[in-house]
Amino acid sequence: MNRPVITLTTDFGHGPFAGIMKGVMLGLCPDALFIDICHTVAPQDIMAGALVLEQAMGAFEPGTVHLAVVDPGVGTSRRPIAVKALGMYFVGPDNGLFSTPLTADPEAQVWLLENDKYFRKPVSATFHGRDVFSPCAARLARGLEPSEFGPLISDPVILAIPKARQTATEISGEIIAVDDFGNLASNITADMLEEVLAGMVPEVVLHLPGETLIVSPISKSYCTVTAGGVLAVINSMGRLELGLNHGSLAGHIIDKAADPRGLRVTVKPCQD
Amino acid sequence: MNRPVITLTTDFGHGPFAGIMKGVMLGLCPDALFIDICHTVAPQDIMAGALVLEQAMGAFEPGTVHLAVVDPGVGTSRRPIAVKALGMYFVGPDNGLFSTPLTADPEAQVWLLENDKYFRKPVSATFHGRDVFSPCAARLARGLEPSEFGPLISDPVILAIPKARQTATEISGEIIAVDDFGNLASNITADMLEEVLAGMVPEVVLHLPGETLIVSPISKSYCTVTAGGVLAVINSMGRLELGLNHGSLAGHIIDKAADPRGLRVTVKPCQD
Amino acid sequence: MNRPVITLTTDFGHGPFAGIMKGVMLGLCPDALFIDICHTVAPQDIMAGALVLEQAMGAFEPGTVHLAVVDPGVGTSRRPIAVKALGMYFVGPDNGLFSTPLTADPEAQVWLLENDKYFRKPVSATFHGRDVFSPCAARLARGLEPSEFGPLISDPVILAIPKARQTATEISGEIIAVDDFGNLASNITADMLEEVLAGMVPEVVLHLPGETLIVSPISKSYCTVTAGGVLAVINSMGRLELGLNHGSLAGHIIDKAADPRGLRVTVKPCQD
Repeated sequence: MNRPVITLTTDFGHGPFAGIMKGVMLGLCPDALFIDICHTVAPQDIMAGALVLEQAMGAFEPGTVHLAVVDPGVGTSRRPIAVKALGMYFVGPDNGLFSTPLTADPEAQVWLLENDKYFRKPVSATFHGRDVFSPCAARLARGLEPSEFGPLISDPVILAIPKARQTATEISGEIIAVDDFGNLASNITADMLEEVLAGMVPEVVLHLPGETLIVSPISKSYCTVTAGGVLAVINSMGRLELGLNHGSLAGHIIDKAADPRGLRVTVKPCQD
Repeated sequence: MNRPVITLTTDFGHGPFAGIMKGVMLGLCPDALFIDICHTVAPQDIMAGALVLEQAMGAFEPGTVHLAVVDPGVGTSRRPIAVKALGMYFVGPDNGLFSTPLTADPEAQVWLLENDKYFRKPVSATFHGRDVFSPCAARLARGLEPSEFGPLISDPVILAIPKARQTATEISGEIIAVDDFGNLASNITADMLEEVLAGMVPEVVLHLPGETLIVSPISKSYCTVTAGGVLAVINSMGRLELGLNHGSLAGHIIDKAADPRGLRVTVKPCQD
Repeated sequence: MNRPVITLTTDFGHGPFAGIMKGVMLGLCPDALFIDICHTVAPQDIMAGALVLEQAMGAFEPGTVHLAVVDPGVGTSRRPIAVKALGMYFVGPDNGLFSTPLTADPEAQVWLLENDKYFRKPVSATFHGRDVFSPCAARLARGLEPSEFGPLISDPVILAIPKARQTATEISGEIIAVDDFGNLASNITADMLEEVLAGMVPEVVLHLPGETLIVSPISKSYCTVTAGGVLAVINSMGRLELGLNHGSLAGHIIDKAADPRGLRVTVKPCQD
């Protein structure tokens, strides 16, 4: 049998917290293999964490346990949960982090982490990643049935990830994520583009405060415009993305938009 | 038998040095499992490294080998050592990095790393992490007796980690660590608070240059004040910690204190 | 047999891309052991990536697979390749990243990654790290013959890593890399110094715009000058390096040189 795989997605940054969670999990599941997805989710930004998970989960095999801790509500009454969806497990706070697997899989099941015999004692008020989520993730990885943790619940928190709207002639979406290169990913999908454009050359417009940035056409890759040029591509998630060749578009527009997320993006066929 | 676990704590940042040490260790102990604790200890800040180790070591099982390299004295006469304490091993420079296990375990033993047949040759003057500490850590993980490295020594360097003082009515401590969220951890422990407060509501004062920042009461979690509010909690290490809900307290006070460590913190029962 | 070892060197930063590649590789080679070398190569800086690989590869055992993705040409006609050199494998774009193993091993072989049955489908235009390089690296790690990927090629891209020049009385080199401590590594080697100095005390000069910074002699370690002093050492790669004791030399000279790479460094015997 393959070794149990546990991924980690947090907003813990570069400090010792992720390593501490791995130590706790190793004590309970010594043959675990840990894969760090991302520890630099913007602090307490649940939506950003949910999008990172959405981006990464498809690369993993059935049976993988995804531990995710972006948890502004730690120590309050927000519920700790384990989710089974898409053949994988997800463990963390019930705050919307798992919105994508929960909506993508109609058979998704959610259990409350309630049985404190599976927790690390004493349970601190500020680090459930170590004391609640890690021990439960490690036990799932070892094969414990999730029903051992507590009852099924039917009302997990699900975030409304903003969706692009399309008419017969235009798509209107927004920037939903910024990567380490300063590229801006929108919620406009390749499928939408195909339908609306029907083979015509698109004009992509990024709406900045008091200014618009127009790109046309959509490039095949980051190298088809000259260095420093703005370009639009379909990114590795199948989404329309804007970037600067050999540069950071997020950095380039920082005077106009300190946080580019939420900026409107529209696409229509070129008029000429 | 479980796989040998080797943790890494350094001030190497994000460059290739940690990966290089793992390569060297894999050559000597191919079934090692590496857990990164932290590679962003402030450069050459031995005290910060010692506190990270203190925070992390409790999450690991007996037999774990903790390799730690915060080593401003590399290439000088500072001694390389291996420590056995609390059922675990610690390998690194003799500069105070291992102060907590050395003081916590009265049976702690310390060996000089002297027998150069266990080193990687040639031994560079600037990277003992690769040439001295990693090979010895890997050999300990494989089961070599530490007495093979060299003689026992009885005078390892031990740092004076500042301790809070308490009177019948007041505790006076200081900020000793800052995490990636900008939270400020003090050396005031939950035990001290219980004794001095005896159930009364505490007033926590952070003494900034020319200003004091007063917080009361101590919150159960980071979510019990409004976003942007200052709060005090007992952190996951059982220490009094000050933070900003949904923000960075270290960033908030940076004009007053570029390095918050050493700022005085006092706690007394509220007067009204 | 030992577990297959796959190292990763990229310019992906701290986002989820490295974890995604590991997920893909685990699906194809479940017993792989991943070692992160560096994910903070300066974005799209192929030379910097090549130097990181040069620095790290010597720490790994024969049979190791080095996956490296610094790939400004992704989606263009630049070729994807697998290299066998120095008893190890290298997988990534044919853009010069593997210049050091290719020049160091006269028997080096290079295969085109052409057979798309070994790729992940659909192959995106922007993330060959996930769709082309990772699957091929994982298959090499499992023992697939590289000739399965495609034909041998004889003209891989090789970067001209700048070399220092030496006369009977002077060495003239340049800064080629900056580490996380702000130390500046030159391309002047210990061997050159030995030949030209012949036992005399050297004078090292860093040529800044409008200013020179003179250091003498070469120190045995970072601790032989007072804190804050500039010093020269032979670094762990056997190269002349300039640094600031307890500080960042790169930060110190940033007004003169935002990117210290390319700054000229000369060494000659002291006149007095």
